[in-house]
Amino acid sequence: MTTRRELANAVRALAMDAVEAAKSGHPGMPMGMADLAEVLWNDFLRHNPANPKWFNRDRFVLSNGHGSMLQYALLHLTGYDLPMDELKHFRQLHSKTAGHPEASETPGVETTTGPLGQGLANAVGFALAEKVLAAHFNRPGHEIVDHRTFVFLGDGCLMEGISHEVASLAGTWGLGKLVAVYDDNGISIDGEVHGWFTDDTPKRFEAYGWNVIRHIDGHNADDIKRAIEQAVAQSDKPTLICAKTIIGFGAPHKQGKEESHGAPLGKDEIAAAREQLGWSYAPFEIPADIYTGWDHKAAGAEREEVWNAAFDAYAAAHPELAAEFKRRLAGQLPADWAEKSNAYVAKLQAEGPEVATRKASQMALDAFGPLLPELIGGSADLAGSNLTKWKGSLDAGNGNSADGKGNYVYYGVREFGMTAIANGLALHGGFIPYDATFLVFSDYARNAVRMSALIPAHAIHVYTHDSIGLGEDGPTHQPVEHLASLRYITNNQLWRPCDAVESAVSWKMAIERKGAPSCLVFSRQNLKHQQRSEQQVAQIARGGYVLSDPQDTKFKAILIATGSEVELAMEAARTLAQQDIAVRVVSMPCTELFDEQPLEYREGVLPGWCRARVAVEAATADFWRKYVGLDGEVVGMTTFGASAPANQLFEHFGFTVAHVVDAVKRTIR
Amino acid sequence: MTTRRELANAVRALAMDAVEAAKSGHPGMPMGMADLAEVLWNDFLRHNPANPKWFNRDRFVLSNGHGSMLQYALLHLTGYDLPMDELKHFRQLHSKTAGHPEASETPGVETTTGPLGQGLANAVGFALAEKVLAAHFNRPGHEIVDHRTFVFLGDGCLMEGISHEVASLAGTWGLGKLVAVYDDNGISIDGEVHGWFTDDTPKRFEAYGWNVIRHIDGHNADDIKRAIEQAVAQSDKPTLICAKTIIGFGAPHKQGKEESHGAPLGKDEIAAAREQLGWSYAPFEIPADIYTGWDHKAAGAEREEVWNAAFDAYAAAHPELAAEFKRRLAGQLPADWAEKSNAYVAKLQAEGPEVATRKASQMALDAFGPLLPELIGGSADLAGSNLTKWKGSLDAGNGNSADGKGNYVYYGVREFGMTAIANGLALHGGFIPYDATFLVFSDYARNAVRMSALIPAHAIHVYTHDSIGLGEDGPTHQPVEHLASLRYITNNQLWRPCDAVESAVSWKMAIERKGAPSCLVFSRQNLKHQQRSEQQVAQIARGGYVLSDPQDTKFKAILIATGSEVELAMEAARTLAQQDIAVRVVSMPCTELFDEQPLEYREGVLPGWCRARVAVEAATADFWRKYVGLDGEVVGMTTFGASAPANQLFEHFGFTVAHVVDAVKRTIR
Repeated sequence: MTTRRELANAVRALAMDAVEAAKSGHPGMPMGMADLAEVLWNDFLRHNPANPKWFNRDRFVLSNGHGSMLQYALLHLTGYDLPMDELKHFRQLHSKTAGHPEASETPGVETTTGPLGQGLANAVGFALAEKVLAAHFNRPGHEIVDHRTFVFLGDGCLMEGISHEVASLAGTWGLGKLVAVYDDNGISIDGEVHGWFTDDTPKRFEAYGWNVIRHIDGHNADDIKRAIEQAVAQSDKPTLICAKTIIGFGAPHKQGKEESHGAPLGKDEIAAAREQLGWSYAPFEIPADIYTGWDHKAAGAEREEVWNAAFDAYAAAHPELAAEFKRRLAGQLPADWAEKSNAYVAKLQAEGPEVATRKASQMALDAFGPLLPELIGGSADLAGSNLTKWKGSLDAGNGNSADGKGNYVYYGVREFGMTAIANGLALHGGFIPYDATFLVFSDYARNAVRMSALIPAHAIHVYTHDSIGLGEDGPTHQPVEHLASLRYITNNQLWRPCDAVESAVSWKMAIERKGAPSCLVFSRQNLKHQQRSEQQVAQIARGGYVLSDPQDTKFKAILIATGSEVELAMEAARTLAQQDIAVRVVSMPCTELFDEQPLEYREGVLPGWCRARVAVEAATADFWRKYVGLDGEVVGMTTFGASAPANQLFEHFGFTVAHVVDAVKRTIR
Repeated sequence: MTTRRELANAVRALAMDAVEAAKSGHPGMPMGMADLAEVLWNDFLRHNPANPKWFNRDRFVLSNGHGSMLQYALLHLTGYDLPMDELKHFRQLHSKTAGHPEASETPGVETTTGPLGQGLANAVGFALAEKVLAAHFNRPGHEIVDHRTFVFLGDGCLMEGISHEVASLAGTWGLGKLVAVYDDNGISIDGEVHGWFTDDTPKRFEAYGWNVIRHIDGHNADDIKRAIEQAVAQSDKPTLICAKTIIGFGAPHKQGKEESHGAPLGKDEIAAAREQLGWSYAPFEIPADIYTGWDHKAAGAEREEVWNAAFDAYAAAHPELAAEFKRRLAGQLPADWAEKSNAYVAKLQAEGPEVATRKASQMALDAFGPLLPELIGGSADLAGSNLTKWKGSLDAGNGNSADGKGNYVYYGVREFGMTAIANGLALHGGFIPYDATFLVFSDYARNAVRMSALIPAHAIHVYTHDSIGLGEDGPTHQPVEHLASLRYITNNQLWRPCDAVESAVSWKMAIERKGAPSCLVFSRQNLKHQQRSEQQVAQIARGGYVLSDPQDTKFKAILIATGSEVELAMEAARTLAQQDIAVRVVSMPCTELFDEQPLEYREGVLPGWCRARVAVEAATADFWRKYVGLDGEVVGMTTFGASAPANQLFEHFGFTVAHVVDAVKRTIR
């Protein structure tokens, strides 16, 4: 009979050996948290290694993601499709065992972690998703949505500001199925934390309304088991288990020290650790009885079968709900989506409302929201400015989704936490989350926006007040470099629509962009409606298209614009036409999508022969050099904004017909 | 005799009137915090309106900066150079009364606030600066550095994650001269906060080790006075005063509601408020006795005179220290700086060490640090990776700067807080702060980096592990878009040096860039040394220069590179030379600085006739279109990185001599 300690030692050995083989990695955390993981995974975690996507599994998140070998060892040992060969190729090109856990690479990894604190935030998103989805779908006697979220985290996660934001929300929302295990080892990279981390963390989490379990010995299985039992026995509050551990547990000369954190232990220390732990097996050798002790395949399959039977019963009792549940979990849009959303866009083009695009965004939500119960929105305390609430918005976080229809989250002033929670909501399944703040404060959320693209997660980030058009609030609130910076995030798509029609299309595209994020950027101020043919309306979805060409003559120059500057470009083109200078106007609401079009299409819009190109956007000018080259010009921003009424600012910073006309003339040689 | 309430009502009236005149702004907070401000400014704050830069003044920071009219009213009433006419032009172009307080625009505004939570962080920086500067300069009987930092903050600041990071540090450091006043009005933009902000804030701050004063009536002057007296009476811990207030106090129909927060009250409500407050004066009319009650000019002048006398006594007793104090406060570099720093650069060029540029950065610190006691460094728990500690580094935060030489701060894993604290250190005077993390985690600090440039503040942000060259940690830790994104921040200068020489110059330039920030970006991996003439060494300071030209023949193409890709460009140029293709190589460590050079210089480096240009940088490719145009090529990144050894990644992502050679050939037409 294998002991619990022996089971845990298998994790320790794999962590030591894989890091040593890679000559790179973090052995200390897996060795320190191995006993905690052993108890959690063997006694509590409900999952099915053969089907990592089984819906009702407990979610496990490694917020201290540098300890990735802990997770890889657990997945391997319990029976996931992660063979020993992958562990031997830890941190190598094309392996499934990246330096930090990556959801897109490794079966059983729920989210990509490493950027500290964000795993905890994702976990709060998972737990919120479970709570809201249960309210949407569970019916008396049919608890088909019923799982927990467990998250491991370290001192680094707790020092990061995002831990404050999301722990506060988890407490307010009473996420009773969230259990966080704190690896309290007293060590961070700079050494013993008492010089820079003296928080009374249990007291801090009690201040957030959490259930806090103190003074757990993270190397005593009985202690750990009692703690988790207590955590899962209550359902009103999230739980923080504070477990004292020894980093690098088992490495005789390096345990308890920073030396074990982020570098291979070295041959001699590994040999000494094997001796101290009583682990006599060769590197990457796991004896059969240890595998048996960890194997979760049969138990997992049985658990899924039980749930499948429960779901069948649910489907029999509530066939429509069950079909809707399946649709949402599959990430399929409703059958009538394409028809109705296209009809809405066509109607807008015909009616031509002249509104701020943030208002057009709200109108799109009012049109699309009733079709999409999977939409779950929110704003960082700017609902009335971002216009993110629509007619069907109901509070989802605070349990007053009692009618089962909650779909709106009050995130408070917490941009980073909000965005990382949205990533969790998207990863959980069953939801398409959107979040919102002013564009300038996308900065606060920046790495979570990057993570949306890297994981990737189908999250929609709504950013209003998109330029100096914000006006009086001044340069602290006026974005300049943000459009370019967000466009440069790989796999992100940013839309800056010029009117209500493009705004509706941007929402439609973001909703349809399954498995990847979008940023929707809207104006504070009213924008004019643009005339379009049916073909032009369809071409919005290509990211850039010809909005206007001269009649009966070939154009001599091209004006490219986005958002609020499209009407300026159109007016400049009309002025130029009066002077017999024929100009094409290209609206480019999504540059990334335009770049993905076939060369033929792009050449059709921006033909190579025409180097007389002027881009107009109230944001970083240099971004547009990729389209206008060295021969073109950009009417853009080269400084911060200022505090004044918007119309004065546009004039002050040169966004005038006269300036654009002059720029075009200069480019025509 | 005017009452305290009447004095406070002057602030309320000015806030109402200015917001109404601007048709824009936030009256609620100034009206809610007027009584708190009145007691603090009239009974405690030590300042001199005639000299806003008097060194030993108390610092006052408005972290909830949307309440800017509170600060403008206070400055106007107490006698600063902020005439009524400026208040009448609140939020107008070219006024000194921007929508949010801007340090560069308004006398008496210590830092630019509005992005929530960062004012508190700046204030922690001010208080830390005071503590460390006192240790550097005070001598028994001569407390020439002795002031407090007061900060007002609201619910929004406390929800933001950065409040956690910096409050934790302030507690750990025991910043006893920091007093924060919490405007506990229970309202944020989305309404009553109980739906999204249920923290027990006093308990939370006690968990950070703060002195917390609860249950203060923010409209009772006696209560407020007792609280501030208690706060300033103790010196071991920072203090949080939790003051219950009514937002929009005095506006009969809007007070206590979100409606008073962010919009003009309207004529009728203002009239009603005047009645309720018993304020019978016309808009912008302040009676003489109210001015008298607020006037601080005489008291302030006297206070400065007393300090000047004390400083004279100090100078008599410690003439060298006093001279050094004056030098540091004036932001002047030491007399021997230019000579010694140039000598160090020349020595490096001659010796040619081949090290990682992060190591070269540390060498530069070892060379320059002994010359610059004003340098105060730190890292977000990555000292051993960022290599930010040098031989003279001594802990500054934790009181073991008892020898009076502390110059290094252990920030823990708190990138955003660190950076905003550094802004405070820079603004305080007496210091040149540098902070550090991995380049990818500049994301976490992003808005504080922007604020460094906007305020502006002379802060140096050190970012190591600058590309896929980071290797095994994988895409979560590998920056891609960060170089371009940071370069796009107006008034920021980013350096990505290619060897030890350029690294030393980047430090030198950042140190000499008085009043504005720099980002110094360094490699994890070793880089080759580049040969340079004396003239070339001097040209590094122009941001971009010709590193290599073909001998005896005119070049046909230009290779532009930065950092680790310069050696690749050089090798490609040598390979091309063997094929009789003559190529120029331009090293471009700081694009922003190169762009500022006279046209003649830029044309000399990148002549217009040569369109065969290839840029090479292991980061966002599109950024380089501004230099290579539509005819050139970029060997750059177009996806996220991956987890593998660095050399394999460079090859995998196309950073090879063969690729660069091919690209050059394609551009030569």
